[in-house]
Amino acid sequence: MIKTLAVIGVGLIGGSFSRALKAAGAVQRVIGFDLDSENLTEALQLGVVDEIAADYASAVSSADLVFLAVPVRAMTAAVAACAPYLPAGCVVTDGGSVKEELVAACEPLMPEGCHFVGGHPIAGTEHSGAKASFATLFQGRRCILTPTSRTDQQALELVQRLWEAAGSRVECMEPLTHDRVFAAVSHLPHMVAYALVHAVDRSAEEEENILAFSAGGFRDFTRIASSDPSMWRDIALMNRLPLLAVLDRYQQEFAALKEKVAVGDGAWLENYFTTSKRLRDEII
Amino acid sequence: MIKTLAVIGVGLIGGSFSRALKAAGAVQRVIGFDLDSENLTEALQLGVVDEIAADYASAVSSADLVFLAVPVRAMTAAVAACAPYLPAGCVVTDGGSVKEELVAACEPLMPEGCHFVGGHPIAGTEHSGAKASFATLFQGRRCILTPTSRTDQQALELVQRLWEAAGSRVECMEPLTHDRVFAAVSHLPHMVAYALVHAVDRSAEEEENILAFSAGGFRDFTRIASSDPSMWRDIALMNRLPLLAVLDRYQQEFAALKEKVAVGDGAWLENYFTTSKRLRDEII
Repeated sequence: MIKTLAVIGVGLIGGSFSRALKAAGAVQRVIGFDLDSENLTEALQLGVVDEIAADYASAVSSADLVFLAVPVRAMTAAVAACAPYLPAGCVVTDGGSVKEELVAACEPLMPEGCHFVGGHPIAGTEHSGAKASFATLFQGRRCILTPTSRTDQQALELVQRLWEAAGSRVECMEPLTHDRVFAAVSHLPHMVAYALVHAVDRSAEEEENILAFSAGGFRDFTRIASSDPSMWRDIALMNRLPLLAVLDRYQQEFAALKEKVAVGDGAWLENYFTTSKRLRDEII
Repeated sequence: MIKTLAVIGVGLIGGSFSRALKAAGAVQRVIGFDLDSENLTEALQLGVVDEIAADYASAVSSADLVFLAVPVRAMTAAVAACAPYLPAGCVVTDGGSVKEELVAACEPLMPEGCHFVGGHPIAGTEHSGAKASFATLFQGRRCILTPTSRTDQQALELVQRLWEAAGSRVECMEPLTHDRVFAAVSHLPHMVAYALVHAVDRSAEEEENILAFSAGGFRDFTRIASSDPSMWRDIALMNRLPLLAVLDRYQQEFAALKEKVAVGDGAWLENYFTTSKRLRDEII
């Protein structure tokens, strides 16, 4: 499908994309670049990529497709660093988990004849780095692509076919729609869990037995509060407005629930919990 | 250890207690009573209990120990219904998940020579009824007993030995301490999850794609929002003040987090998420 793929950021996502496309025979040669030279060397040694580059210029100058999988806060700068060296016809796509701000910043950076396509593979593990990558990470998982009115149709189709070759089901969505959806189903639950761990810890200051009993249900519920802090800082900063909208909605729901606990309104509470159960069972 | 055990409420908890003690050879004969006669018949057919009683009086009148495992809202009334028929020396204990209000109500109901010991086995499954019970439910799980200044020491020791025979690790705690601990580590997470499901559902009214993407992380996080609504109504009503204290603490944490998202304070957010991760990893 393509001759040369450049992967910028050869971590779990970038490395797995490379492995998946190599395994599918969808690419002839993969060049990797990573600011972490130790990780990059490991990527080469493990065969995650075929070659490694010393800088952005040599990484992308012969690429048909550039896949950027660096932290979201670094994405625009990485695209800007690649842009001057992109060969004509090159397609650039990313794996960032926030899209509106990023797509708006990256599209105008493309030189004439090069095309940007925003993307977000819905996949991951608790591990990171090239050594954590594996060819089947995207198998059966969704990948959201976020074309805009400026997106080149052939570039979009190429990126879609590559994600499909990696095993993903591709869906297209406007960048802002993507951000609103993930604010609700992913970013909000993370914020809720982060606040919960803090609230339980503050309670533990008043009652020493609390920590000893915090295992069990609390364990599963707060797993997401162990997610990478700098990644979630970036998501909170870059998806600020959609996130604020759902934080606000959550605050209203919580305040209403607390008020009904305060007045002891059993009928309301049972109805609220019944609806929660029905909604949750419908969603899953 | 005892000759006759009466189990009032032969569901998952009551039935499993009976099975566990029979399996351990800690009881000679178990009499069951349940307001749900279909469930009670099934308990007999499945051998969960040895005999079934037609009313509270015949269930408890020959019992050395009475174990009540009815919904918490019905517990005090069930203890009151048994009290006139308790033989001298009988020990009464319960499995209710809220303790302060219940222990305070049940202790004075005991006739002369009979003793109440509050308890809360930390075990359960998503299923209910006698057919869901099994002998190893309490194996390796904690059981909290909540003695007070009025508790008879021999009665406490008997109840402790029985739970140990059922495979549990027994810990004693004041009733109010119990309620504060579980408000923080169990009741608060449930309220947080119930509100989350509602907030996501409200978001879905504005953005149709949301429900389609609600699986994955959201699934684990909201499992507890599928818990039995009437049980959680009762817990919210009966543990009102300790629950309000932690709901309040949570509301403060969430408001602080939202404010920092609103102003885009990346350093604060990263620090908050880092602390969450550390606290959570310490707790688990």
